[in-house]
Amino acid sequence: MELYFSPLSSSLASRIVLHELGQAAEFHEVDPFTHRLLEGGELGAISPLALVPVLRNEAGELLTENAAVLQYLADRFPEKRLAPTDPLERTRLQQWLSFVGTELHKCVFAPLFDRGAPEGAKAHALSKAKPRFDLLEAHLQSRQFLLEDFSVADAYLVTVLNWVQATPLQLSNWPAVSSYHLRLCARPSVARALAVELPLYLAEQKRHQAT
Amino acid sequence: MELYFSPLSSSLASRIVLHELGQAAEFHEVDPFTHRLLEGGELGAISPLALVPVLRNEAGELLTENAAVLQYLADRFPEKRLAPTDPLERTRLQQWLSFVGTELHKCVFAPLFDRGAPEGAKAHALSKAKPRFDLLEAHLQSRQFLLEDFSVADAYLVTVLNWVQATPLQLSNWPAVSSYHLRLCARPSVARALAVELPLYLAEQKRHQAT
Repeated sequence: MELYFSPLSSSLASRIVLHELGQAAEFHEVDPFTHRLLEGGELGAISPLALVPVLRNEAGELLTENAAVLQYLADRFPEKRLAPTDPLERTRLQQWLSFVGTELHKCVFAPLFDRGAPEGAKAHALSKAKPRFDLLEAHLQSRQFLLEDFSVADAYLVTVLNWVQATPLQLSNWPAVSSYHLRLCARPSVARALAVELPLYLAEQKRHQAT
Repeated sequence: MELYFSPLSSSLASRIVLHELGQAAEFHEVDPFTHRLLEGGELGAISPLALVPVLRNEAGELLTENAAVLQYLADRFPEKRLAPTDPLERTRLQQWLSFVGTELHKCVFAPLFDRGAPEGAKAHALSKAKPRFDLLEAHLQSRQFLLEDFSVADAYLVTVLNWVQATPLQLSNWPAVSSYHLRLCARPSVARALAVELPLYLAEQKRHQAT
């Protein structure tokens, strides 16, 4: 398999899941501002919106959208139990994947990281954070993971929570979420993914400061 | 089953799917601005973010998030074939559900309908529409539906395309999307859902103009 990724972006979730599954993959780094592959070429030539993650499977099929890619990976290796098979539990997984994708990633964080967003858009996005983090806080107060066990939804959530430090949000306002974040970052698959992508992220920042 | 909905909002997709499945349900109308049920009470007492759809199943479980609710409904009645069971085709379904939810609903339309959005947010959201509708246009040029057959992803997409008329976007710029939209609106399940919710939507508008 091949994963097109940008350092510490939402594609980190797929890398975490590949580590959980013990699967090797070929990784192609994409600059998130130019949408160019570091090895040369444009991500837009592969996927029209030029958004990561893009996963290419062994048959050459290109898969996009976190909720789809993460469930695909989990379902390829069901023995690793990264996605429940019980129908109602699977619905809960899909609910969390959608919540992280629509309410956290797109509603709160996307405007905070959007360089073209108009004046006031960031403050407006921040005002939406509280009810969403309150919901997470209530849910995680009595739980280790979003579901009973670690699942691909946790891989997505820890990825998004990493972004908090680049915003004015203070995770310490939500102690259960904060402790979940620390716990997940210490998980070997997550720690290993961060150890690879943090230096790449810093190199990317340096590259853009230079230009 | 019971569905908490607001007229013509994203919960319309669940009503369309209930019609496709031939399933009766109890419908509870929610005012999208006050988040109050028309029958009395607050949606926030049932679901913390007070967002529709909320589906209550026969066991009393509350399900939220379109991608989850729609797949839940499809999987409850597999003989109706509203969601593919082949693994790669299911991934494609999840990809489209996620695309409609994150790239269309949350990225383009949510800011256009957000009364608290800052100056410039609507123009910025409109600028994101073109690549997303171009992608749809290319996909639908040779297809009747998002996948091979009608699926719950089409129920979500037609719901979102209905919103275009309340925005400065012109669907005629994307002829294949426009013809898909007309074709889907003529589908009995969609026509019936619109016939119920359009009068409720107009009544909601009137109520808010009066206040």
